[in-house]
Amino acid sequence: MTNKKEITAGIIIIGNEVLSGRTKDINTSTLAKWLNSLGIEVKEVRVIPDNEKVIIETVNILRKKFNYIFTTGGIGPTHDDITAESISKAFNLEYGFHKDAYTILEKYYKPGEFNSGRQKMAKMPTTSKLILNPTSGAPGFYVENVFCLPGVPSILQSMIGGLNNILVGGDPILNITISLRTVESEIAKSITEIQDKNKDLEIGSYPFFKAGKLGVSIVIRSSDKAKLEKCNLEILKFVNLKGIEILKDN
Amino acid sequence: MTNKKEITAGIIIIGNEVLSGRTKDINTSTLAKWLNSLGIEVKEVRVIPDNEKVIIETVNILRKKFNYIFTTGGIGPTHDDITAESISKAFNLEYGFHKDAYTILEKYYKPGEFNSGRQKMAKMPTTSKLILNPTSGAPGFYVENVFCLPGVPSILQSMIGGLNNILVGGDPILNITISLRTVESEIAKSITEIQDKNKDLEIGSYPFFKAGKLGVSIVIRSSDKAKLEKCNLEILKFVNLKGIEILKDN
Repeated sequence: MTNKKEITAGIIIIGNEVLSGRTKDINTSTLAKWLNSLGIEVKEVRVIPDNEKVIIETVNILRKKFNYIFTTGGIGPTHDDITAESISKAFNLEYGFHKDAYTILEKYYKPGEFNSGRQKMAKMPTTSKLILNPTSGAPGFYVENVFCLPGVPSILQSMIGGLNNILVGGDPILNITISLRTVESEIAKSITEIQDKNKDLEIGSYPFFKAGKLGVSIVIRSSDKAKLEKCNLEILKFVNLKGIEILKDN
Repeated sequence: MTNKKEITAGIIIIGNEVLSGRTKDINTSTLAKWLNSLGIEVKEVRVIPDNEKVIIETVNILRKKFNYIFTTGGIGPTHDDITAESISKAFNLEYGFHKDAYTILEKYYKPGEFNSGRQKMAKMPTTSKLILNPTSGAPGFYVENVFCLPGVPSILQSMIGGLNNILVGGDPILNITISLRTVESEIAKSITEIQDKNKDLEIGSYPFFKAGKLGVSIVIRSSDKAKLEKCNLEILKFVNLKGIEILKDN
């Protein structure tokens, strides 16, 4: 990687509904694209159950391994929402009503509607900092380098922008995608040669099947724009030589 | 859990394309639903990069932690397909042409088309057992309790049925979903009470937003059908008492 200073992140998806196959996780993709744009590279994702011991253990391993950790899920009002309490225990911090979170939620709901379930969403490590929620009121929170977000994708999506000025990234990770009407085995040798000549770039090869036809997307990733463009030209050169059709997009 | 003998699985999604956010993983959901039907519970998923050291380390940790491990991705013909070689190293086995895999691929391709890229797909731990691929020829393989499948979802989907008689599961994990026109905070207290009375069932609460309206799906999971149905009735009882609308599905 050409990043002089690589900034890394881990994602922890908390939820039995993903492990049971009921829910397909799309938060990883949202978080990864956003983090890449800030120059932060996602190095690992773990999907774990709503289990306090597992949450504490996973958070405590990963927060030392990467610069930033993002958790999704488990901060709602029901009995299976145990992320906030587990994070408090992971950091050995008091779990209770967060003053500002309580005030936000009290104002968000109509008088008489701020019931015990909703009040639970104001409980978290009492000294944590809040991540505001413009969609449904209940804030996320962060402690040191661990950022806790909700599991509902549209709400998560609306909250992450609020962290742009808090996270410190490296050079944004750029990418170029070249989609070809071919199969991987036809280009494997040439791409290997180009990867060997460009060891500090990441070249990925991804077969696809679309509208009944096979194709391959070659994705080059780097934070060095000049190197990226040079490698792109090398790929286009052999593609032209071989007479392979270049597709508009995939 | 009511499973007398719980059979567990871990999934390792291998691929920079998932970590970069380019590709949304749907193989976890496919594998988890299929494994549940065989009475095997997915306990953890890890998404890791195309990096030999990380693959070896992750496989060697998880294969001791769970009964079965499934890897997806990295068994194609290109330079970034390093799963087969990494698995060989993880088990300290010879990596080379697998005789049966070579024969299958040689027959699959027309004469002259079995090029070096395609031949690479016959390289794996030479003593591994094959997982047949009815879609695109190239087989997956397994060593002890580690099953290596491709990353392309439609191909993976077509291959897993071949393992039904090889995997030994527990009692199938059954589930009932009750979808309600309500919000989580309205039912949190009642569901908590029901969960407290039914500690050996797993009750999940999942808010959703569909066609402009909020709702909650309550999912009960257990391998004990009688307990599942009893719990279902308890939930329907309080739902009726509260006059909450039950939705057809979500």
